[in-house]
Amino acid sequence: MIKNDKNKTLAFDWFTSLRDQICASFEKLEDQLAGTTFAKDAPGRFVRTPWKRDDSGAPNISGSILNGGGEMSVMRGRVFEKVGVNISCVEGVFAPQFAEHMNGAKESGGKFWAAGISLVAHMQSPLVPAVHMNTRMVMTSKSWFGGGADLTPMTPDDQDTADFHSAFKSCCDAHDETYHPKFKAWCDEYFFLPHRGEPRGVGGIFYDYLDTGNWEKDFAFTQDVGRTFNEIYPALVARHMNKDWSAEQREHQLIRRGRYVEFNLLYDRGTQFGLKTGGNTEAILMSMPPVVKWP
Amino acid sequence: MIKNDKNKTLAFDWFTSLRDQICASFEKLEDQLAGTTFAKDAPGRFVRTPWKRDDSGAPNISGSILNGGGEMSVMRGRVFEKVGVNISCVEGVFAPQFAEHMNGAKESGGKFWAAGISLVAHMQSPLVPAVHMNTRMVMTSKSWFGGGADLTPMTPDDQDTADFHSAFKSCCDAHDETYHPKFKAWCDEYFFLPHRGEPRGVGGIFYDYLDTGNWEKDFAFTQDVGRTFNEIYPALVARHMNKDWSAEQREHQLIRRGRYVEFNLLYDRGTQFGLKTGGNTEAILMSMPPVVKWP
Repeated sequence: MIKNDKNKTLAFDWFTSLRDQICASFEKLEDQLAGTTFAKDAPGRFVRTPWKRDDSGAPNISGSILNGGGEMSVMRGRVFEKVGVNISCVEGVFAPQFAEHMNGAKESGGKFWAAGISLVAHMQSPLVPAVHMNTRMVMTSKSWFGGGADLTPMTPDDQDTADFHSAFKSCCDAHDETYHPKFKAWCDEYFFLPHRGEPRGVGGIFYDYLDTGNWEKDFAFTQDVGRTFNEIYPALVARHMNKDWSAEQREHQLIRRGRYVEFNLLYDRGTQFGLKTGGNTEAILMSMPPVVKWP
Repeated sequence: MIKNDKNKTLAFDWFTSLRDQICASFEKLEDQLAGTTFAKDAPGRFVRTPWKRDDSGAPNISGSILNGGGEMSVMRGRVFEKVGVNISCVEGVFAPQFAEHMNGAKESGGKFWAAGISLVAHMQSPLVPAVHMNTRMVMTSKSWFGGGADLTPMTPDDQDTADFHSAFKSCCDAHDETYHPKFKAWCDEYFFLPHRGEPRGVGGIFYDYLDTGNWEKDFAFTQDVGRTFNEIYPALVARHMNKDWSAEQREHQLIRRGRYVEFNLLYDRGTQFGLKTGGNTEAILMSMPPVVKWP
């Protein structure tokens, strides 16, 4: 099943490089903060924690076998209240009940390989949007890329929303003009809380099972999604991070974060699948906001 | 299907009466607070908010028909940081995909009736355990009672745990000596977070599908579960509520509350089923803690 080691190496090396680039951008923003009461604090720095499965090959609590490992990078800073950037590279055999729900995994006898980068940022300022970005390469009996990025402002700002969408539209259009309309709609559909009748944020792009038959082309697109994220999001942060906010705005932010928690635990496929198949709980739940209120 | 209106009325009247008794006990504790920095605040009082389905008989977003209503009672006090006591009485027709998962609902063509009381208390003091209690009567093609009560101390206290279990053991034993071992084990099994390898709290009792063939007997047991709760829990609150706590203990409490959120959104059947079948979101998510940290 795992037939092309060169591509696996290229993909994981890219996710690692992108992680380094993003961490550098975010630390630069920490250095550049000039306003707000947090300016007196020291700039935050990422702390990296590698993790590794025991590689014993024994099934875990879910009946699946999951080997490999990853690295969490977490920063608790003066701009980024809590941001996690995870990379991972795992392989194994899913128990039949999970393999059924995974593209091509029935045909591979449950065998899979997956590598990716996953990022969630919760900000000190309620004027700076929270954000999520993830890209991954997965192999079963099939091979594909998936991922996306979406913005969650506490109070939407038309210019930010337009600029975020415009950046990903340019990114998509450079590869295939059918991508942006499709991936933007998919994002809106995915990040929706039916029990609230609310979208989680203002969207972005979401794609999955991308396999045009040209691996190099799909990989190049996935790389560009990462690069685009690392240009547009730091620009939006810089735009707002020095502004003061009110206690009411902060309170509103803490309540809005509850919706983030609700979405991730009730609906997010990656979170549910990861936790139920014995993934790394600490890495998966790094997406939880540092402080949340349901008043 | 809904053949016995007398029983339905008796059950709902009891849940309403139990709600009144519990709210009175909890307000009394608010009055009795003598210690901690909160003693200078005014005692909390419950605020009641009735809600009602539109009764149009039209299917909701989930394809199910859900009529009826309920009443939320919420208190934000000086002992109880946030406590919700919900009663509800609903009936309708579940969409086939939900009816499948419900005892006897396939045979009733999805038709059901349910009434119950549900309570979650999150406390100001990290020395006072959080608690959950719920009892309900459900009818499909079958009719049964379910419910239970479980204690979630921030740091378990052996005496509290022993007293809580002892109260429910006496309650169970008065009805059937097989109940307590079975319902205590069921509680431990149910309130467990596999992704953390942790129980949610120290347990209590959990029972479902209770139908001995003697409705009066099962109803009497369910009433006693409510009465027992309203004796033992206020006693535990009174035992600890006047003690001062440290900032570290409070921080630990806010983090432990994250486990409560994780359990309720990832695993709790009632929460998942309620939200996915178009239940009252506000009432269902009243269980969410007022402030939570995932640092």
